[in-house]
Amino acid sequence: MTVSPRIAIDAMGGDIGPAAIVAGMARARRKDKKLHFDIYGDRKAIEAELKKQTGLDGAVTIHHADDTIGASEKPSQAIRRAKTTSMGMAINAVKDGVAHAALSGGNTGALMAMSKLALRTMPGIDRPALAALLPSLEHDLVMLDLGANTECDAQNLVQFAVMGAAYSRTVLGIEKPKVKLLNIGTEELKGTEELKDAAAMLREADYLPFKFDGFTEGDKLARGDIDVVVCDGFSGNVALKTAEGTARFVTDLLRRAFTSSLRSKAGFALSKPALNLLKVHLDPNNHNGAVFLGLNGLVVKSHGGANPKGVANAIGVAARMVRNDITNKIATDLDEFRAHAFAGADK
Amino acid sequence: MTVSPRIAIDAMGGDIGPAAIVAGMARARRKDKKLHFDIYGDRKAIEAELKKQTGLDGAVTIHHADDTIGASEKPSQAIRRAKTTSMGMAINAVKDGVAHAALSGGNTGALMAMSKLALRTMPGIDRPALAALLPSLEHDLVMLDLGANTECDAQNLVQFAVMGAAYSRTVLGIEKPKVKLLNIGTEELKGTEELKDAAAMLREADYLPFKFDGFTEGDKLARGDIDVVVCDGFSGNVALKTAEGTARFVTDLLRRAFTSSLRSKAGFALSKPALNLLKVHLDPNNHNGAVFLGLNGLVVKSHGGANPKGVANAIGVAARMVRNDITNKIATDLDEFRAHAFAGADK
Repeated sequence: MTVSPRIAIDAMGGDIGPAAIVAGMARARRKDKKLHFDIYGDRKAIEAELKKQTGLDGAVTIHHADDTIGASEKPSQAIRRAKTTSMGMAINAVKDGVAHAALSGGNTGALMAMSKLALRTMPGIDRPALAALLPSLEHDLVMLDLGANTECDAQNLVQFAVMGAAYSRTVLGIEKPKVKLLNIGTEELKGTEELKDAAAMLREADYLPFKFDGFTEGDKLARGDIDVVVCDGFSGNVALKTAEGTARFVTDLLRRAFTSSLRSKAGFALSKPALNLLKVHLDPNNHNGAVFLGLNGLVVKSHGGANPKGVANAIGVAARMVRNDITNKIATDLDEFRAHAFAGADK
Repeated sequence: MTVSPRIAIDAMGGDIGPAAIVAGMARARRKDKKLHFDIYGDRKAIEAELKKQTGLDGAVTIHHADDTIGASEKPSQAIRRAKTTSMGMAINAVKDGVAHAALSGGNTGALMAMSKLALRTMPGIDRPALAALLPSLEHDLVMLDLGANTECDAQNLVQFAVMGAAYSRTVLGIEKPKVKLLNIGTEELKGTEELKDAAAMLREADYLPFKFDGFTEGDKLARGDIDVVVCDGFSGNVALKTAEGTARFVTDLLRRAFTSSLRSKAGFALSKPALNLLKVHLDPNNHNGAVFLGLNGLVVKSHGGANPKGVANAIGVAARMVRNDITNKIATDLDEFRAHAFAGADK
């Protein structure tokens, strides 16, 4: 067990710049005194932000980077500048064994492409996946893939299930997570061939440290009775963004309703403390920490617009994954899956 | 123009049974005195419900049906009982020219399978699609396909765009609807090959009575600046159900917040009239009227749990489509699309 997680931070990623990131590091360190940060980006800007924070003395190593990856830059262009950009250098720190995990709030496509190229997929994984936390009525659930792969076969989906369950175990502490496949119906005959094949394979794999529980539909995700939901990157991305858009839509309607009359404005004022609870529950900063799983090294994607609390939460996710050695957990589960599959084929 | 729409109603479909359906018919007729209904189902149950309503005299023809399709019955079993079930008989009324449209709140899979078999796809359409209305901040938008086809090629998506635009024009009265394709990014290079090919074809088809406006993502659907969103049936179903689930999740959180303290309960009481506006906006009964498009005849799917207002809204959708001759509008647009495509190929 690694007791002192060392996190490589891209100071220049994200919409707000180094201010939110350095403040998030300080916030994370106040909770977890063993953290060490390698921070990559403009030295002067970083030093200016560090002066505003306390509690980071001796916990930060600054690495100057001349260049940054733009928010709309194409991944194919970004990968050529791995050695000179704050994002590329943070990822390389993981590759070179300097850091245990990299964290960036920058361009997702570039981060994914650079991470894949530098860290390569781990043995037994055909494609890495982007996993994130979604709020529900009970606890957060892990969802993957969220856009790394537009099309997936049954093997990919099974591997995502193994990786998502490892996320749930290491970060949320759920011993035997309940895993479901996202489908357009819950009957066994519903959906694509890939989904039906993946379900058949997962049903057999009852020796793995999670419980496969069949199909689920988009309307049941937020109920709180699922720990991990697995899907291809296209429908995962559609579901995640539709959930975000709908939550915003309903709260917009709520705002309109509350400002529609003097009476309802008074009601709003009275209900404010309660409504703040709703805001806390839906705030993406409280569910920050999307992760690229399936690489030989950890890369965490923070929301581009994350505030210091959001950055601190993403750092917390990275630290828990490092301490609980998620990469090895995934490798072990995959070995077991393959051993059983081969044993089955021999019969 | 057909001035007296004749609608074939499945009295036995839906979770509530004939009561909500007959009450919905009465409600629809009060608004539209030209409607005529052919109603299929248990004669005694229908007659009992008709006695409770006024304004339906001379507007209803009852056709007794011994049998009904169960909610969980497999489509492959249902199609064998087309002649004896209320659902099958209502669809056959359209096939036989007795009615202009059929309406059922029953088993969606069975309704789709029976409709396809009885009515066949119209010339120029490879696959019918399920279209429905979604609420947004401005007006309802049309979304299709919502589950009739798990996988779609570029041609299918182009045909869905033509059909969805015809829905928007005939039912919502939007002269030149803005049509978008659902994708996981808005850049031209994003998404599957099918989506990129469909976008290229739609960009060329600027002579059609709608405006193709590129890609959209799940988080932008409810903003109110899209009239028609086109997607394959898998991601459409995922998006629709995730939106429903998230709206319920947020309102559940809201309810929890409002009952968390005496103070917030008082605030809730004060804000109630305003919050009812939110409820009205999100109530699926106000957006009822999913339609199978692309068949030689109209079939409307009402929500299984629709109340009389919901049933009346679905009848209204059917009547507007009949009066505005949506099937012919689709046929004309498809002819134009093919004429241009052939002219292009000759160059």
